[in-house]
Amino acid sequence: MFFNVFYCLLLRMRFRKSLSCSDFINTFAEETNTMRKPELFALILILPVFMQVSRAQNQDSVVLRKMYTEALNNPVGWKNLDYLCTKIGGRICGTVKAEEAVQYIRKVMEGMKLDTVYLQPLFVKHWERGTVETAKLFSAKKGSKDLHVCALGTSIGTGDTGIKAKVVEVHNFAELKAIGRSGIEGKIVFFNRAADDSRINTFEAYGKAVDQRAQGAMQAARFGALAVIVRSAVPVHDNFPHTGVQHYADSVKAIPAMSVSTNDADLLSSWLKDDPSLKLSMKMNCRNLPEAPSFNVIGEIRGSEHPEEIIVFGGHLDSWDIGQGAHDDGSGVVQAIDILRIYKALQMKPKHTIRAVAFMDEEIAQRGAAAYADAVKKKAEKHIGAIEADRGAAVPQGFSIDGSDASIEKIKSWKPLFKPYSLWSFEKGGSGVDIHDLKKQGTPLVGLVTDPQRYFDYHHSANDTYDKVNPRELELGAAAMAGLVYLIDTYGL
Amino acid sequence: MFFNVFYCLLLRMRFRKSLSCSDFINTFAEETNTMRKPELFALILILPVFMQVSRAQNQDSVVLRKMYTEALNNPVGWKNLDYLCTKIGGRICGTVKAEEAVQYIRKVMEGMKLDTVYLQPLFVKHWERGTVETAKLFSAKKGSKDLHVCALGTSIGTGDTGIKAKVVEVHNFAELKAIGRSGIEGKIVFFNRAADDSRINTFEAYGKAVDQRAQGAMQAARFGALAVIVRSAVPVHDNFPHTGVQHYADSVKAIPAMSVSTNDADLLSSWLKDDPSLKLSMKMNCRNLPEAPSFNVIGEIRGSEHPEEIIVFGGHLDSWDIGQGAHDDGSGVVQAIDILRIYKALQMKPKHTIRAVAFMDEEIAQRGAAAYADAVKKKAEKHIGAIEADRGAAVPQGFSIDGSDASIEKIKSWKPLFKPYSLWSFEKGGSGVDIHDLKKQGTPLVGLVTDPQRYFDYHHSANDTYDKVNPRELELGAAAMAGLVYLIDTYGL
Repeated sequence: MFFNVFYCLLLRMRFRKSLSCSDFINTFAEETNTMRKPELFALILILPVFMQVSRAQNQDSVVLRKMYTEALNNPVGWKNLDYLCTKIGGRICGTVKAEEAVQYIRKVMEGMKLDTVYLQPLFVKHWERGTVETAKLFSAKKGSKDLHVCALGTSIGTGDTGIKAKVVEVHNFAELKAIGRSGIEGKIVFFNRAADDSRINTFEAYGKAVDQRAQGAMQAARFGALAVIVRSAVPVHDNFPHTGVQHYADSVKAIPAMSVSTNDADLLSSWLKDDPSLKLSMKMNCRNLPEAPSFNVIGEIRGSEHPEEIIVFGGHLDSWDIGQGAHDDGSGVVQAIDILRIYKALQMKPKHTIRAVAFMDEEIAQRGAAAYADAVKKKAEKHIGAIEADRGAAVPQGFSIDGSDASIEKIKSWKPLFKPYSLWSFEKGGSGVDIHDLKKQGTPLVGLVTDPQRYFDYHHSANDTYDKVNPRELELGAAAMAGLVYLIDTYGL
Repeated sequence: MFFNVFYCLLLRMRFRKSLSCSDFINTFAEETNTMRKPELFALILILPVFMQVSRAQNQDSVVLRKMYTEALNNPVGWKNLDYLCTKIGGRICGTVKAEEAVQYIRKVMEGMKLDTVYLQPLFVKHWERGTVETAKLFSAKKGSKDLHVCALGTSIGTGDTGIKAKVVEVHNFAELKAIGRSGIEGKIVFFNRAADDSRINTFEAYGKAVDQRAQGAMQAARFGALAVIVRSAVPVHDNFPHTGVQHYADSVKAIPAMSVSTNDADLLSSWLKDDPSLKLSMKMNCRNLPEAPSFNVIGEIRGSEHPEEIIVFGGHLDSWDIGQGAHDDGSGVVQAIDILRIYKALQMKPKHTIRAVAFMDEEIAQRGAAAYADAVKKKAEKHIGAIEADRGAAVPQGFSIDGSDASIEKIKSWKPLFKPYSLWSFEKGGSGVDIHDLKKQGTPLVGLVTDPQRYFDYHHSANDTYDKVNPRELELGAAAMAGLVYLIDTYGL
């Protein structure tokens, strides 16, 4: 009976009021005033244990506060991002820009007096956008109109003369199949399924539309299409075409694939209604080149007690070429480095080795992730936790956790510590593709979750530039992850 | 014993898992599988009541989903904001621009087939910025330098010849007093206490620094200062000077008051360290004119059951003149109107009268708020709830509630309904100055809480422009308030 009452009391107080630990003790004290003697006696027995937990949590609160203050007062990550975005810029793997980024990040890490900084070699695909990517409508009824377009990553070019053909609008692969070869052969297929504006999580809207970009060319080629033009998979209405990787199948002829802005997709659709026989001309001189050497960039602070056990965190260094790779994902890289910087600035020594990785080639074939996972396997490294930041540098909401129920509950138990910093979302969910392979060794994976509303305004477009990143929001993300690293280092996962 | 178990079960399930109502029922069903007979019997007795509550909540979920979909699919508020910001622009009360805004909002409301649209007359102060606001440093050691400055609202001008004098840097009124008349007379006082970057809630950082702006001139004049120059009260490092109202005291001589950007405040402070005898020249031709007539703009849908009981919501139509008043607070106005639009679009008929108010003159003397409160008193109108949106159009976090414990608990009980929309903060707290007077009649007040990280990048500066407002974030705010209005209309407060 007593334990029921006690348990009720605990639950009621903690969950209804979402109290911090110290508030909790105070409220607890108030509520016990009304208790009867045997209940109080049992409480006295259990209180020392509780107080010990509380002292630890108070110390954790102090550490987190210091980390946040350091991050907000010294936005070094934001300054590093400035260089990466405005001095180097877009850096798709295999290019000179990507190599400049590797050298820059190595230099930044080497300047931080870390215990180890090294490059992890790998090979990447090398796709070149070229200098031409245009599309124009020709309609006897409506006139002519240039569209806002860009090549999709890994697309072949159109050849110098370009392609000019009638257009078939479809919204999914089933529709494509229903129309069949007779309606598609010799034409350009226009994939125009819109991302759903009404979804609150824009990543879901993107996820439900992006198959057209990834597989559109492959699917349309099966029916004899000459090329595809794909509506940007974003719940945004503007003139930016959004690029991204697309895949060819070995068994199907490769055909050119381009992206069109959502506004121009609406326009094209509207013109097609008025004039189904209009023609679209498109020209691109993008091409695939031989694979090129590249690197992950790695820096770490060695653990004082368990140097052989690693907490890894990172983002990807490559970015699409038409923007500056600010939100996707320069921010994740500089945030990861900032975690190490915060540890150094606060003169904190982790018990386990903490490691920042700037992964190469997330955008095309995830070779950086594969090289990292291979090295982990070869060296038989033990990772006790892995965190990825690759959802943009908007204000952090919390963490999504991919691990055992015990790991998830453990991270959730830290939620009160993050309440002063407005983190509220601690849910089971995916982490990120660059650390995903570590799941095989049972490492709990975590993704930094940031507010998704603006992300697809920028994603894979010329609009993903440094000025779109807010220094406070960026640094809050770095501090949130630094806090999580500290808690994993202290309590394990 | 049973009820303890039952209560524990309820609490554990709802609060640990933060379940939606339907999820809750499912989980509840699972957990009851393990129960013994007497417990199950008691459950069967209580279940019909619970199911009824659940049906209502499911219907509420459907309504909220429709409201959010309507808002996100049809960002009409965002289009209205475009006109208000880019066609009209900054609109401090008493000016032609403010009157244009009144007429525009009236026209928008009149086009919505509301039951009532009217103007509520009032008188406002009329301050004119003029055409000149400059400041320049002169140092024998360092050279000369123009600063990014602007006049503070209600400041007098400097006269045609301007003011040129030595500068005394202080950080608070105690320091001013300690220096005293001998050190201050005939000089310009430079208030340079910085807003605290490390505070997570930027409104707190602002709140702790803004006394320098509001009372700096009044306090410095007591010691014979010629003028004041005040560091912008924002936790941001850039070149925008931020204006805002300042107050003179009848008993003290009025002296000119200007704002300087945070970057230039740092520069001025640094130059002063090197050359304490440098001089600052400043010139402004701002002036106070006779009071002018103006209006609140009001539109409403009459209640079908209790037309005499009102739920009011609004933002303020006036804005500072140097920006476009986008975040502060054009967004609040168009969101309030959008609540009515959502009701009309969904053909929903509220039981109580729902009323949008575009308040005039929040920025200088809150005459709109006073006129509204007076009218409420005269007409003996009963307000059952009031909501204000005046914290910028960033992504909504939740509601701050100023009312009885019962009202606060009632709004908190709706938190699960807002979980799908990422609202998480339902706390006791202030609402806004435009509805504050309604507290006297016991009306529960609510403020829409939005993410505060970027707000002071814009606040009262030339940077508060339409392009800084994201349509999704703006519309999510409108939908959140529409949902709250619906729940207040359905269940009272």
